[in-house]
Amino acid sequence: MDVRGSLRDGAFGSATGLVCRECGATRELGPHYACHDCFGPLEVAYDFGTVTREQIEAGPRNIWRYKALLPVPEDIESSPNTEPGFTRLLEARNLADELGIARLWVKDDSTNPTNSFKDRVVACALSAATELGAKVFACPSTGNLANAVAAAGARAGIRTVVFIPSNLETPKQVNSAVFTDNLVAVEGNYDDVNKLASEIAGEEDGWAFVNVNVRPFYAEGSKTLGYEIAEQLGWRLPDQIVIPVASGSQLTKVHKAFQELITLGLVEDKPYKVFGAQAEGCNPVATAFAEGHDAIRPVKPDTIAKSLAIGNPADGIYVLDVTRSTGGAVEQVSDDEIREAIVLLARTEGIFTETAGGTTLATLKKLVATGALDPDLETVFINTGHGLKTLDAVSGSVGPAATIAPTYDAFVASGLA
Amino acid sequence: MDVRGSLRDGAFGSATGLVCRECGATRELGPHYACHDCFGPLEVAYDFGTVTREQIEAGPRNIWRYKALLPVPEDIESSPNTEPGFTRLLEARNLADELGIARLWVKDDSTNPTNSFKDRVVACALSAATELGAKVFACPSTGNLANAVAAAGARAGIRTVVFIPSNLETPKQVNSAVFTDNLVAVEGNYDDVNKLASEIAGEEDGWAFVNVNVRPFYAEGSKTLGYEIAEQLGWRLPDQIVIPVASGSQLTKVHKAFQELITLGLVEDKPYKVFGAQAEGCNPVATAFAEGHDAIRPVKPDTIAKSLAIGNPADGIYVLDVTRSTGGAVEQVSDDEIREAIVLLARTEGIFTETAGGTTLATLKKLVATGALDPDLETVFINTGHGLKTLDAVSGSVGPAATIAPTYDAFVASGLA
Repeated sequence: MDVRGSLRDGAFGSATGLVCRECGATRELGPHYACHDCFGPLEVAYDFGTVTREQIEAGPRNIWRYKALLPVPEDIESSPNTEPGFTRLLEARNLADELGIARLWVKDDSTNPTNSFKDRVVACALSAATELGAKVFACPSTGNLANAVAAAGARAGIRTVVFIPSNLETPKQVNSAVFTDNLVAVEGNYDDVNKLASEIAGEEDGWAFVNVNVRPFYAEGSKTLGYEIAEQLGWRLPDQIVIPVASGSQLTKVHKAFQELITLGLVEDKPYKVFGAQAEGCNPVATAFAEGHDAIRPVKPDTIAKSLAIGNPADGIYVLDVTRSTGGAVEQVSDDEIREAIVLLARTEGIFTETAGGTTLATLKKLVATGALDPDLETVFINTGHGLKTLDAVSGSVGPAATIAPTYDAFVASGLA
Repeated sequence: MDVRGSLRDGAFGSATGLVCRECGATRELGPHYACHDCFGPLEVAYDFGTVTREQIEAGPRNIWRYKALLPVPEDIESSPNTEPGFTRLLEARNLADELGIARLWVKDDSTNPTNSFKDRVVACALSAATELGAKVFACPSTGNLANAVAAAGARAGIRTVVFIPSNLETPKQVNSAVFTDNLVAVEGNYDDVNKLASEIAGEEDGWAFVNVNVRPFYAEGSKTLGYEIAEQLGWRLPDQIVIPVASGSQLTKVHKAFQELITLGLVEDKPYKVFGAQAEGCNPVATAFAEGHDAIRPVKPDTIAKSLAIGNPADGIYVLDVTRSTGGAVEQVSDDEIREAIVLLARTEGIFTETAGGTTLATLKKLVATGALDPDLETVFINTGHGLKTLDAVSGSVGPAATIAPTYDAFVASGLA
């Protein structure tokens, strides 16, 4: 994918280039993810001009209503895509009462097309892959990302190749294999799969790996979570927000979205605190935060929150920046706390979250207990995926209250009448 | 729940009463489902007055945008509910090409809060239960309905009791038990569970069984599928629509919705054909249609499409009326055709449907082959639920294309490069 000079006008909307987050050096738009000068990560830069609430509100009921703020062409809706986003923002009154919080909202991304927030980032990566003329749409993954890539690629009619560890549970394999003929099981762990993907990205021409060589475009998709929260609150920012941390990209992009909305005059400028959530079994950012370090010491993950199990998170240092500069924090919780939080959310609000969402809610609860989060301020937390994908986390702890004969007398005797 | 005289004004919106679909006798609004005179099924009647497109479009992005057309109060949005509906209507170009159809859309209800269309009907039943002062929100179910009732009840803060056959698979139990303390496993099959539920509804005061004593209100929720399809097509009706048939309620309610939109002047009056989809292993309505009968002969279900496995469908005769009067048909397909259709939809459009959706798509395919469905006319089919709930249907037929060592050479040797 050497595309210099061959891009159509407006292929990346109002994006103007790629800029290094470390040294500020710029690079032209293309399948690049590392700085020429310092190897720092690249991020998309824009010249937005004027964007109005009315313009956004007149758009479709999915992430493309924010297309003016994304690196996608003006006609993005006409390309077949999964139309993710604009998921529910539910006020969680029962849960707020339970936690002793004045006002609480849950942004529920479990109802996205393939049931996780990954549909947002993959939609942006697909647009980049298409504009760059990629022939293959690919990723290494253990779950949610594989589902999203395989589904989006099928609908777009582009060849997909999805790499997974060969010991992945059958249900998770099925949930990707149903969409693609090219599910590749790799004998090794996720790190081995990831390494192989990077090697293929370097060797094969025309392969767009969503989280490797088109990562800067992919990552921008997470901004839409921030835009939606603000719009759904009536064009205003919450006081506090709690976000799970895997690579850390989502947290930094939600913050970027809030900052863009302020700069564009779409919301009132006001302080807000950003909090990060990790599992104790994969806590490199939480540990660095607690110890006051600026660098991240990688860990070997061991937690039920597998979709957060990135031991060496690429955006960890930026998570430290955002949480510290906004007055937030990064906290960590145990697997038992995660399991309890999954059931708590289900019982209070009727939402079945995966382990990542359990991590986020358990962290919110802990932040209230430690006093880091102010229970009198309006708070949002993000549920990034669906409990049907991580059933094992709770299948041992919930079940029938009684097993009875099929008679009214047996029912009365059960004590449940 | 004897509520005469105690209902608040506007508890059921513009609904005026219950009317028998057999003899036309009327009954007051309340927890009634059978005619006093002839035991025929009761349906909600309305006096809508004027309803405009602008009024609807200014509403929330869920089924309550149609509250003026439902038996719910004006302030329904302020009661905690799962906010279902306004799901994706996707143009299915790849699938249309595959089937040789000019223009095809899929209405995708797999992205509802608990991943099936049942969230729509349960939301309406919950409103009725609340207005009638019910103390318990309950249902007999084998899957989707149990999930929807348990989740909606949790969020509303009403006690839920959900009855299932005790031999139900663990994942399906978990997906309800996570929401409620009162999952009751009944030693028997679904018919036994259903019978027990009716008995309890008769004996216990204050129990609202969504599909028994508040069924007329519950069933109205399916109309929102029809409203949404028309609005999402730009306020017009499709030429043909294919809908799965379990009890038959959904099909008749989508037709009712289309007729209401015409009467209210919200869409242009035009002919459209309604088609019903059944599995060969539970085909009472398809058989009656094929044989030209007006009555339904019950069957003992044996199909992988378990959510369609109602052997004695309450609304079967009305399905015959609607399909015959509109020039449609009811067709049936085999379990193998259902499995193939699940994979076809996934591979062409990136949507993972459950067996009910597979039944609907396989039927659509067969209707094209038999000539009953005109491939030159615009067609919509409804995907009612999510493939994650019926993984076993395809887990034997899809999987990795290759298992390789974690090296680039192994990848090249696999032939997938």
